[in-house]
Amino acid sequence: MSLQTCSADQLAQLFGSNTTDPHAAATLICDQFAAVSRNFVDTGYAIDSTYLLFSAYLVFSMQLGFAMLCAGSVRAKNTMNIMLTNVLDAAAGGLFYYLFGFAFAFGSPSNGFIGKHYFGLTDIHAQNLDYSNFLYQWAFAIAAAGITSGSIAERTQFVAYLVYSSFLTGFVYPVVSHWFWSPDGWASAFNLNNLLFSTGVIDFAGSGVVHMVGGVAGLWGALIEGPRIGRFDHTGRAVALRGHSASLVVLGTFMLWFGWYGFNPGSFNRILVPYNSGSKYGQWSAVGRTAVTTTLAGSTAALTTLFGKRVLSGHWNVTDVCNGLLGGFAAITAGCAVVEPWAAIVCGFVASVVLIACNKLAERVRFDDPLEAAQLHGGCGAWGVIFTALFAKKEYVFEAYGGDASRPHGLFMGGGGRLLAAHLIQILVIVGWVSATMGPLFWLLKKLNLLRISSEDELAGMDMTRHGGFAYAYEDDETQKHGIQLRKVEPNSSTPTTDE
Amino acid sequence: MSLQTCSADQLAQLFGSNTTDPHAAATLICDQFAAVSRNFVDTGYAIDSTYLLFSAYLVFSMQLGFAMLCAGSVRAKNTMNIMLTNVLDAAAGGLFYYLFGFAFAFGSPSNGFIGKHYFGLTDIHAQNLDYSNFLYQWAFAIAAAGITSGSIAERTQFVAYLVYSSFLTGFVYPVVSHWFWSPDGWASAFNLNNLLFSTGVIDFAGSGVVHMVGGVAGLWGALIEGPRIGRFDHTGRAVALRGHSASLVVLGTFMLWFGWYGFNPGSFNRILVPYNSGSKYGQWSAVGRTAVTTTLAGSTAALTTLFGKRVLSGHWNVTDVCNGLLGGFAAITAGCAVVEPWAAIVCGFVASVVLIACNKLAERVRFDDPLEAAQLHGGCGAWGVIFTALFAKKEYVFEAYGGDASRPHGLFMGGGGRLLAAHLIQILVIVGWVSATMGPLFWLLKKLNLLRISSEDELAGMDMTRHGGFAYAYEDDETQKHGIQLRKVEPNSSTPTTDE
Amino acid sequence: MSLQTCSADQLAQLFGSNTTDPHAAATLICDQFAAVSRNFVDTGYAIDSTYLLFSAYLVFSMQLGFAMLCAGSVRAKNTMNIMLTNVLDAAAGGLFYYLFGFAFAFGSPSNGFIGKHYFGLTDIHAQNLDYSNFLYQWAFAIAAAGITSGSIAERTQFVAYLVYSSFLTGFVYPVVSHWFWSPDGWASAFNLNNLLFSTGVIDFAGSGVVHMVGGVAGLWGALIEGPRIGRFDHTGRAVALRGHSASLVVLGTFMLWFGWYGFNPGSFNRILVPYNSGSKYGQWSAVGRTAVTTTLAGSTAALTTLFGKRVLSGHWNVTDVCNGLLGGFAAITAGCAVVEPWAAIVCGFVASVVLIACNKLAERVRFDDPLEAAQLHGGCGAWGVIFTALFAKKEYVFEAYGGDASRPHGLFMGGGGRLLAAHLIQILVIVGWVSATMGPLFWLLKKLNLLRISSEDELAGMDMTRHGGFAYAYEDDETQKHGIQLRKVEPNSSTPTTDE
Repeated sequence: MSLQTCSADQLAQLFGSNTTDPHAAATLICDQFAAVSRNFVDTGYAIDSTYLLFSAYLVFSMQLGFAMLCAGSVRAKNTMNIMLTNVLDAAAGGLFYYLFGFAFAFGSPSNGFIGKHYFGLTDIHAQNLDYSNFLYQWAFAIAAAGITSGSIAERTQFVAYLVYSSFLTGFVYPVVSHWFWSPDGWASAFNLNNLLFSTGVIDFAGSGVVHMVGGVAGLWGALIEGPRIGRFDHTGRAVALRGHSASLVVLGTFMLWFGWYGFNPGSFNRILVPYNSGSKYGQWSAVGRTAVTTTLAGSTAALTTLFGKRVLSGHWNVTDVCNGLLGGFAAITAGCAVVEPWAAIVCGFVASVVLIACNKLAERVRFDDPLEAAQLHGGCGAWGVIFTALFAKKEYVFEAYGGDASRPHGLFMGGGGRLLAAHLIQILVIVGWVSATMGPLFWLLKKLNLLRISSEDELAGMDMTRHGGFAYAYEDDETQKHGIQLRKVEPNSSTPTTDE
Repeated sequence: MSLQTCSADQLAQLFGSNTTDPHAAATLICDQFAAVSRNFVDTGYAIDSTYLLFSAYLVFSMQLGFAMLCAGSVRAKNTMNIMLTNVLDAAAGGLFYYLFGFAFAFGSPSNGFIGKHYFGLTDIHAQNLDYSNFLYQWAFAIAAAGITSGSIAERTQFVAYLVYSSFLTGFVYPVVSHWFWSPDGWASAFNLNNLLFSTGVIDFAGSGVVHMVGGVAGLWGALIEGPRIGRFDHTGRAVALRGHSASLVVLGTFMLWFGWYGFNPGSFNRILVPYNSGSKYGQWSAVGRTAVTTTLAGSTAALTTLFGKRVLSGHWNVTDVCNGLLGGFAAITAGCAVVEPWAAIVCGFVASVVLIACNKLAERVRFDDPLEAAQLHGGCGAWGVIFTALFAKKEYVFEAYGGDASRPHGLFMGGGGRLLAAHLIQILVIVGWVSATMGPLFWLLKKLNLLRISSEDELAGMDMTRHGGFAYAYEDDETQKHGIQLRKVEPNSSTPTTDE
Repeated sequence: MSLQTCSADQLAQLFGSNTTDPHAAATLICDQFAAVSRNFVDTGYAIDSTYLLFSAYLVFSMQLGFAMLCAGSVRAKNTMNIMLTNVLDAAAGGLFYYLFGFAFAFGSPSNGFIGKHYFGLTDIHAQNLDYSNFLYQWAFAIAAAGITSGSIAERTQFVAYLVYSSFLTGFVYPVVSHWFWSPDGWASAFNLNNLLFSTGVIDFAGSGVVHMVGGVAGLWGALIEGPRIGRFDHTGRAVALRGHSASLVVLGTFMLWFGWYGFNPGSFNRILVPYNSGSKYGQWSAVGRTAVTTTLAGSTAALTTLFGKRVLSGHWNVTDVCNGLLGGFAAITAGCAVVEPWAAIVCGFVASVVLIACNKLAERVRFDDPLEAAQLHGGCGAWGVIFTALFAKKEYVFEAYGGDASRPHGLFMGGGGRLLAAHLIQILVIVGWVSATMGPLFWLLKKLNLLRISSEDELAGMDMTRHGGFAYAYEDDETQKHGIQLRKVEPNSSTPTTDE
């Protein structure tokens, strides 16, 4: 029984004419219930907004994680460069996503392909959206761009970065998120009036929408640029170009893990959704379960990678374990809300195998991705999309997405093959769309000589040639060595002197 | 209609004498509503406390951000020193703010100048305050001290630091926050009975109260100490003394960005405040909008700085972009809750220009601030105070601060000039107060030879001379080089041996 | 008056027979109240779950803190090794705690010694538990393992680590947490039907359960392994083996401080618990007060250590201050929820003294713990257990633990000696249990030659010999030095080449 149903007229009739003023009494009572009802509305908005905003902050913290992971994974001479791209992913992404990205992604009503409202957040309250929704989705958009910057690290012109990053965050990614996440999207599982294959695509937090998009874009970038100098020797054998700081890699990985608790459980957007009012099981339980599946998938992938790489390379490698962990997270992201915890273990195990296989394949075909981003986010992301179509549980799909009880679920859970069909379509469509947009863009940049830096600059490192100097200075500086009398002007001064 | 209005007497009358026991029936019903009302009170406290506490934790995380930003921005030889000051800002600040800082700031009722209750948090519940309010405000107080320590980095005696930091956190800053934030403060926009110029100062999260206070204190410290050795050559030209780790700078900047979502949106203190009960627009929306304005101001400032410095210095500089970003944040902090998102873009753009100009000016006048803290927090903070007086929107001011509809708002938004007048007063008063307190303090420390370290120590670095050794040891240590037989006692051992 | 008490029968009688349909009217009204009541249930779950989940995320972030603290505290040559153990604490802990750890700890009803339900989280909703509870407790379990890995750093075989860590997280720690935290535990303060000494052990967030367990395990590990080569010279004098990065130490310390706000205040598990419905004092206040006591204890310990070490060693040492701070946190963890803020200052002061004394003692007896983990978590943890028995305040114990008003509280607060007796038992039992399980395990590993690495490996560092290479590469790599023509295969490649 909802609180909306207190009808003063009905209650007055029940009191009847012997009551002194039945209508006033009934109105007094029902008005009280109406006030209670409004209080619950307020309370719900406050709780859900708190939940969504702090989730958004966690997702944002992943950008810090990406920055440190990327920095640690490249050579010291390109540290400033890659970190600048990470800062700008967030900053430029903030502007572009505000101006039109969010409108393309969630500007309903749309034509199913691309949104067309809320440019510059105008009239954002027209639908059931608020600023918190924008903030949350912005943090997702910049994650996609961050993935791609890893693939093309250590050899890309800064201008090329500015171009592709804006295009990706402002257009390519928003369109994909519209298709699969907007209630209007042609393949969205929320599009209850018109479900693709009667099911739509269940990509809960974006193994496809975020990770595959970032990974496939990175794949094209890295392919078109070619490998870094020295990555493969003249016989074609792979040469490890080790990152300069494992500490930063681990720091970044842990921050990403931390932030993933905003990324996956936060994708419910609301936590105050009873599935059966008054019982202890509700969306809050589903949110917690999503945090658990996320944890288990990553943990399993990390352990699998640990032992797998021990067998393959003969040592216990922390950076490989970190990548395996992240691969597990990227894979569970699609299905985190609709699978059982035990299935997450399966997901993580296979994700680790997929990542190792993709890396093997990449070496064989002379593909160089300094962060393994295409393999990790693209490969494990694709596995995650398939995994969800196999293991999605009926009740959880219904709870998270609504609709009627007949909607399909995972193939291995007795839900038939329609979800798998939809998910294969998703993979094809994402690969196609990103290839058709980002591929030509990278190709054009190459033709315009705007894509790759010169080999001289690559050998010297971008920090010295483009970013004002080396990222580190652990040694004593000149001043100290030569004593107090030395006061020469350093030519590479990052601070312009007054009379220049 | 409020839930308090269920009057059993009135309802009993409406039931009338034909009802078997009208008063008992009415009491039963109204008691239920009273219980509902109490439940809502409990719920509200729980939600708002959750919101405020987690916001406080985010603000605290900015201290980590400051520590890493400062560490990365100084030379390696002074890393231990600056990080120790950051740890102590938080720790000493915890004690002092508990003992009297919070009392000075929020111990209402006061005389308008300084609070005088709640020393040691005694009777904190007398007014509408709780431990969470203390925690939140403590995290702000230590941020102010952190700003100042950046300005005087690399040349200040540790004892001087202990003195000024305690004085700033325990007295100077609390008094300012009392003036502008306490309901009793003479210039507070919450002081509805006695508004300065009928408006009070709208410094929502403290561009003036926190950033200008820290920045002006740093200005005096850095002026009185003079520049670091080698910062200007004998012709007076500026020589860049590059920080030792850009990775730490970026790490710190991202942590500050993360924490700023506690600083600005958190300054509402409460999220469950309906502006119109039962509608989807309420304080939760304002909180989200505040996160958005914060994001956009920082993003715009970062991009402006990127291109501005590219033109001025010829390269894409990540540390400059980080400082620009932080300048945008410092500027939007005053107005974040009361301006439209588009205005935040204006705010960030100008903040970047202000920062670049202040840095130019600083070089011209031989002012050396290793973190650019005086320029960034003082300069951009002052701009933020003015910006708010220009762009504050009528509805948002009313929602955030209450009062009547006639209270002034931003000059450019048709709100007249009274807010601008009040804000110019704020700038003058803060500059005056901090100069009158911190200036003499730094001067006195100098006269007592307690302020600046010797030039020998400065050249050698403070870590070796004062803090037990260098912060880093990447090279193999002696033990390893000489093999297992070498077991000499290192004279610089940081662990005292048992027979010393 | 609870909302459950709206009886339609009773209300119908009060309306009486002159009302047209008294039963229908009463039912309508009482059904509305029942719906209101259910809404409050839902709201409560949503708020408490939000609170608990975000607290869990904060506790998880401590693992990042541990990783950075440990990395910075060891020599550069063992950085990869120690960070890998930190990543695996979380990952392996995730699996083991899911499979059986949580069941051992909280699988009620139990025999008082060990839980026996919820293996693999099956039927987790049978009692008042949810996935969020599992996540929160998992984050605690991995913290215990993290403590131990510090004690035996720089000299332990990786296989030994895998064995002891699984055993500790999966069995030793869960059993202890069952005893003291499960409502079924024989010594739990929640076991209201059968309180040990009529009081049970008040170890709110685990000074004993987490910190002593980790510390005592580390004590045995470090004792059985013996000191690192070079830690004591041939005369037995201590030689400092300085960690390689103070920046990482400070970073880790701040992250631990940040995460401790999840650890201590979060241990209430719920925030929406009115102590007196409708008043502003409730569990939300207690949560805030807990954050304050935590802050004050750490702050006091940091300042005490600063000045204490200044006197003892002659310099201002940031890493010592960090350890002092953490010692204060470890000590307040037991009593954080049940003591006044002023008592937390006492707690922190003594904790610093305890830590300094334990470190002195450790040097005297040639005990080598690279992280001071046994001293810090074991020593200060034990002090925290005693402190709580002295300073626990009657009202706070009652509010946090329930029971009747006669239950004992702190000795110095007039609560008698029974709590102290129980807490001395706790210390004895934890030391006994951990010694009886982990001691033989480490001894067995030693007998099997699986515990300590060879002295050659120890001198060379584990990263080169076991983990694929050195953690850092700040210098230009070979490729760059020799120019573009150089493309040899590096033998230490961390990426297996395709034809291996």
